[in-house]
Amino acid sequence: MTLHAVTACRPGGPVLPSDGTGCTLQPLPHRSFRLGRHGWLGSWQATTVERTLPHVLRHVLDGEAFTNLARLTGESDAPFTGMLFTDSDVYKTLEAVAWAAHDLPAGDERLEQAERLVDLLQRAQDPDGYLNSRVQGDPGVPRWSDPQWGHELYTAGHLFQAAVAAARCDVLPRLVDVATRNADLVLDALGDEENPHVDGHPEVETALVELYRATGHRAYLDFARRQLDRRGHRWLGESHFGSGYFQDDVPLREATRATGHAVRQLYLLAGAVDVAVETGDAELLAYAVRIWDDLAASKTYLSGVHGSRHRDESIGDPYELPPDRAYAETCAAIAAFQLAWRLLLATGEARYADAMETTLHNAIAVSTSTDGTAFFYSNPLHLRSGHDGTHEDAPSQRLPWFTCACCPPNLARLLTSIHDYCLTTSAAGVQVHHPSAGSAVLDLHGGHAVRLDVTTEYPLDGAVAIRVETATDAPWELALRVPGWCTNWSLTVDGERVDATAPDGYARLRRSWRGGHEVLLHLDAPARTVSPHPRVDAVRGCVALARGPLLFALEEADLPEGVVLEDVRLVGLADDGSGTRPGVRIRAVVETSSQPGELYTSTPGTGRTSAPFDVDLVPYHRWGNRRPGAMRVWIPTAS
Amino acid sequence: MTLHAVTACRPGGPVLPSDGTGCTLQPLPHRSFRLGRHGWLGSWQATTVERTLPHVLRHVLDGEAFTNLARLTGESDAPFTGMLFTDSDVYKTLEAVAWAAHDLPAGDERLEQAERLVDLLQRAQDPDGYLNSRVQGDPGVPRWSDPQWGHELYTAGHLFQAAVAAARCDVLPRLVDVATRNADLVLDALGDEENPHVDGHPEVETALVELYRATGHRAYLDFARRQLDRRGHRWLGESHFGSGYFQDDVPLREATRATGHAVRQLYLLAGAVDVAVETGDAELLAYAVRIWDDLAASKTYLSGVHGSRHRDESIGDPYELPPDRAYAETCAAIAAFQLAWRLLLATGEARYADAMETTLHNAIAVSTSTDGTAFFYSNPLHLRSGHDGTHEDAPSQRLPWFTCACCPPNLARLLTSIHDYCLTTSAAGVQVHHPSAGSAVLDLHGGHAVRLDVTTEYPLDGAVAIRVETATDAPWELALRVPGWCTNWSLTVDGERVDATAPDGYARLRRSWRGGHEVLLHLDAPARTVSPHPRVDAVRGCVALARGPLLFALEEADLPEGVVLEDVRLVGLADDGSGTRPGVRIRAVVETSSQPGELYTSTPGTGRTSAPFDVDLVPYHRWGNRRPGAMRVWIPTAS
Repeated sequence: MTLHAVTACRPGGPVLPSDGTGCTLQPLPHRSFRLGRHGWLGSWQATTVERTLPHVLRHVLDGEAFTNLARLTGESDAPFTGMLFTDSDVYKTLEAVAWAAHDLPAGDERLEQAERLVDLLQRAQDPDGYLNSRVQGDPGVPRWSDPQWGHELYTAGHLFQAAVAAARCDVLPRLVDVATRNADLVLDALGDEENPHVDGHPEVETALVELYRATGHRAYLDFARRQLDRRGHRWLGESHFGSGYFQDDVPLREATRATGHAVRQLYLLAGAVDVAVETGDAELLAYAVRIWDDLAASKTYLSGVHGSRHRDESIGDPYELPPDRAYAETCAAIAAFQLAWRLLLATGEARYADAMETTLHNAIAVSTSTDGTAFFYSNPLHLRSGHDGTHEDAPSQRLPWFTCACCPPNLARLLTSIHDYCLTTSAAGVQVHHPSAGSAVLDLHGGHAVRLDVTTEYPLDGAVAIRVETATDAPWELALRVPGWCTNWSLTVDGERVDATAPDGYARLRRSWRGGHEVLLHLDAPARTVSPHPRVDAVRGCVALARGPLLFALEEADLPEGVVLEDVRLVGLADDGSGTRPGVRIRAVVETSSQPGELYTSTPGTGRTSAPFDVDLVPYHRWGNRRPGAMRVWIPTAS
Repeated sequence: MTLHAVTACRPGGPVLPSDGTGCTLQPLPHRSFRLGRHGWLGSWQATTVERTLPHVLRHVLDGEAFTNLARLTGESDAPFTGMLFTDSDVYKTLEAVAWAAHDLPAGDERLEQAERLVDLLQRAQDPDGYLNSRVQGDPGVPRWSDPQWGHELYTAGHLFQAAVAAARCDVLPRLVDVATRNADLVLDALGDEENPHVDGHPEVETALVELYRATGHRAYLDFARRQLDRRGHRWLGESHFGSGYFQDDVPLREATRATGHAVRQLYLLAGAVDVAVETGDAELLAYAVRIWDDLAASKTYLSGVHGSRHRDESIGDPYELPPDRAYAETCAAIAAFQLAWRLLLATGEARYADAMETTLHNAIAVSTSTDGTAFFYSNPLHLRSGHDGTHEDAPSQRLPWFTCACCPPNLARLLTSIHDYCLTTSAAGVQVHHPSAGSAVLDLHGGHAVRLDVTTEYPLDGAVAIRVETATDAPWELALRVPGWCTNWSLTVDGERVDATAPDGYARLRRSWRGGHEVLLHLDAPARTVSPHPRVDAVRGCVALARGPLLFALEEADLPEGVVLEDVRLVGLADDGSGTRPGVRIRAVVETSSQPGELYTSTPGTGRTSAPFDVDLVPYHRWGNRRPGAMRVWIPTAS
C-alpha cells in the first residue's frame, strides 16, 4: 500500500479542478473572498460557525455517531445504534470545522473537538486502513457485503471530502492520513477492472476526484470513473424500490431522465461532472447536462430543490410537484447547489448560477431556524391547516436533530465554505456570480493582483456596489451576473452609466481597472408573481410571490384571527410593485365554500367572499420561526 | 380451556348482529339474495368465483403463505419469507371459499384446496391452540412479543372471520375448531383486565365480536371491548411513524379525528361499531360516527376511499387528497365499505349506503382487472404522463400478485359475499340499498315469506324493476334507496305513478303486497360534473365526470395521437346530458404553455388552444385494461 502525502495541496475550497482541465471558470483559493459578517451570506455564515457548528459538534460527540466509533476502541460499551452511516455525520462535521478553521482562534473548542474526533478515527481504523464503525463493530458482517444499503463507500466518500478540506485548509493533518489509507484499501479491494461493485448511495465518485486533486494520485480518479461506468447494469439488484432508486437501471451514458432517490441522483451527477472535466470526457459531461435539463424542465420545486416523494425520497414523475407533500430534502437542496456549481465551472453558463441562487436563498435557507440550531429535513412549500406534525420528516416546526442526522452537518459544511461559491476567475477576468458583501483579494490570469470590495444588501436589495482596485494597466473583464428573474437593470462605473447588455446572463466590463474604480449594478427587484407550467397540477390556479431571488410565503400567524389559510385567495399586490418596500404585501380575500360541509358537489354555487384585506408575506426561508401554523408559497387567485 | 361448539350458528353473511341489539336494520341470511349472473354485481361475483378465487388459491398454495405453514409440519424446508402476516392470506382465502361454497359443486377443486389448507392449519397448530407460522417457526421469538409489527392478533382475527364464514355457510367444519382453540388461548394469555396488550393492527376486535355472534361465547365480546378501551394510551410506543399511526395516541372515546394508517383506522372503527351494537354502548357508537364524519368531510377520495400517503399508508391531513399520489389502498376501500355497512345496520341512515355505493363501484371495482386476475394495491385517480411504473405500489398496470398480498384475497372474500350487502329487513319491512339483478326469498318480521325479483342494469342504467310476491295481506314497507347523486327520479307500482318522496334517502312504499306487484324505480342518471371543495388544493380548477354512481376517467388510449393528457382541458359535455347515452363523452381542447420549456415564469402569456374535439371517457373502474398509459379522473377546465 502506498501512502500519498499531501505536500503541495492548493489552498482551495470545495471543488478544485486541476490546472489544464477544460473548465471554463476557476474557483478562487479558499478564503480569497471573505464575507462581511453583516451581509446576508456573511451573517448566515457567522451563525453557522457560532451556533450551528457547536450544536452539530455537541450532537455528534454526545450521540451515537461518537459512541459507534468509540466502542471500537473500548471507550464505549453502548451497542451500535442509528443509521448504518453515522460515521458520515462525523466526517461532514470535520469538513465543516476545516472550512471554518481560518476564523477560529488557536485553541478554540471547536478545533479541539475536531482533533478529538480525528484522534478517535485514527485509533478506530483497522491496521490495513479499513474504517467503518458499523462493519468493524459486528464481526459477522463482511466488508462491502451490503452494497445496496451498507453505505460503506458513501461513508468513505465523506471521509475523503473531510480530508480534502483539511488538506486545502492546512488543518487536522492526521485526517489526510486516515483517508488515504482507507482509499488505498478500497482501491486494493474493489478497484480491479472486472469488479462490478458499486455503492447503493453515490458519493464516493466525487470524493475520489477531489482526493485525486488534493493528492495527485491518478488511481483515485480512475476508480471514480470506473464506478460511474459500472453503474446502471442492475448489479445492485432490485430492492424494494427498484433499480432506478439507486440509478442502477440504465448506464449513465444512455440515461435520459432524472430518476430515483434525489440525493443519490444528484451526488452521482456531481461525480460525473468531476470525472468529465478531469478526463476531458465530453460524453459524460453531456450526460450530466441532459439529466440536469430534465430536472429543470419538469422536476424542480420553485424553491430550487428536487424530490417530491416521502416514500422513497425520490424525484417523482414529470410535473409531480405537490407543495404540501414536497419531500424536498435539505441534503437534496445542498446536492443540487453543489452540482450546479460544478456545471457552472465546467461551462460558464449563467443558468447554473441562477439555479444555485434560487436553491441557496430558498430551499437551503429555509431548512435552518434563524438561530441556527433547528432544522427541517424536508422543506414543503405548503403546511396545511390541521397538519399532523408528529412525524420528524414532516413536522410543524424545525427540530434540533434527527434519527437520520445527515442534514445538519451537511448544512454546516456548506455554509462554512459558502464564500467559495461566489466568485470565479477565467482567462478573461473575474466573474461575480453571487453578489455578497465582502472583500476579495485575488490573482488574475497573468499574475495581476486585484482587490474587490463588495457592498450590498443583496438579496434583500438589488443594489450591488463593487470597488475594484488593481495596479496593473492590462485590461481584463469584470463579469457581473444579471439574474434570470431581473428584467430591468443598470450599470455605472465611477458614476457614469454604462450601456451594457447581458445576452448570456452576464454584464461584461472589459477595460483597464488600474487604480480604484466604483462599479454599481442596480438590479430592479419589484415584487412579482410567478406562475407554474400548466402541467403542474398540484398548484393550478395559484401564483407565488417573489422579490429578487427570494420567494415569499403566506403564514397563518399573519392572517386575521379565525381565517383558515386554505380559504385565502390572492387579489393582487397591495402596493404598486415599484420596489420601494423591502417585503411583499398582498391584497387578499377569504372565499368560503357555498357548501362547506360537502367535500364534493355537483351544484357548487358561489361561495361567500370577504372584504379585501392586506397582509404581509414573509420571506419563505423565514417561515416557521414564530408559533407553529399553516403556511403556503403558492396562493390561489381570487375567482 | 373450553371449546365452544357451533351447533346453531345462524346462516348469515358477514356481520350478523345478535337478536335484540339496537340495530335499526338486519342483514339477510347468506344467499337469501342470489345475484343474477348477468347483472353488474352478479357478473362481478361470477368472475370472482371463477377467476379470482382460483388465482388467489393458486398463489396461496404455491407461495410463501403455504410454505411458511408447511415448514411447521415438516412438509417444507423453505425458510420463512414474506410479510409477518402471510397466514392472513390463507385465512382470507378460506373465508372467500366459505362464502362461495353454496355455488361450488361437491368435489370442486376450490373446496378441496380449502380443505387441504384447513388440514395444514390443524396440523400446524400447537397443542395449546397457538397458531402463527412466523412465531412458531422461530423459537427465538416469544409469543405476542412484537405488538407493534408482529400482527399476531391481526392474523388471528382473520382466522376467526374465516371460521365464522365457515360456520355460517356450514362448510370447512374443522376451521371453527382451529379458531376457537386459538381464540381461547388468546383470552387466557392476554384477556386479563389489567393486561394492556393491544395489537398494532386492529382487526381482532371485529373478528372477536363476530366469533361471539357465531358461538355465543360472551368472553370474546368482552375481550373485544377491552381491546378497544386499552387503545390510545401509547402502550405500543412511538415507532417510526408515531403512536397515531396505530391509533394509539388518543383513547377512542376522546378521539375527534381520523388519523394514521388507513386500514388500521377503518378496521378499528368496524370493531367499535360491532362492540357498540352488541353492548348498547352509545358512546362508542358516537365515536365511530364522529370519526366517520371527519373522514367524509375532508379525508375521502371521490372514488370513496381514504388514505393519501404512500409513506406510511396513512390518511393524511384534511383536504390532502392528491389524485396522482393517492395511496387509496384496495384494502382501505374494502374496510371503508365494511365500516359503512356496519353503520348502516346500526343507524339505517342512507348516507352510509351512499358511501358504500361510491366505494364499491369505484375504489373497489377499479382495483381488479376485467378478467379478475390482476390487481392494483393503490388506486390513484391520476396516472401521470411519463409515470415511472416500476414500483409495485404505483405501477402503470395491474399486477397478478404483491410482496404484501393482502388485497387480492381481501377482494375475494368481499366479492363472494357481496350479495349480502344489498338488502336488509327491519320491523317495518324490506330495504333495497343496492339494486342489483337477482332474486331474494326472505322472511319478514312476523314470519311472512316474500320474494323479490330485481331486474336492472344498475349502475349502468337507472331503471330498477322489482317484482314483489307474497301471500300475506299484512302491510309492510318496501324502502328503495334514492342515491344522493340523483336529483330526479320517479316511481311506479303496477304501472301507476306513485307520488313518493325520499326525505331521508329512501322512497318508502307501505302497503299490502299480496299477490304479485311490479315496482319500477327510475333514477335519472345524466352525465354530470362534480366539483371539489375549494380547500382540496390538488384538484383546483378541475371537475370530474360521473353518471349515476360511476366515476368516469379520461384515458390516454382515447386521446388523439401525440396529445399529452396533462394538456387536455374540458370545455363541457359533448351531448346534451339528457341521459340517452350509456357513457360520458366530453368536448375538450388541448392547451399548451406559452413557454413550454419553462417550469415557472413571471410572464405567462397565453398558450395555444387547439380546435375542440370530442372524446369518450371510460368508467373509472375500467381504466388500464388496454395498453399502459396516463389517466385522469379530475380534468382541468378550459381557461
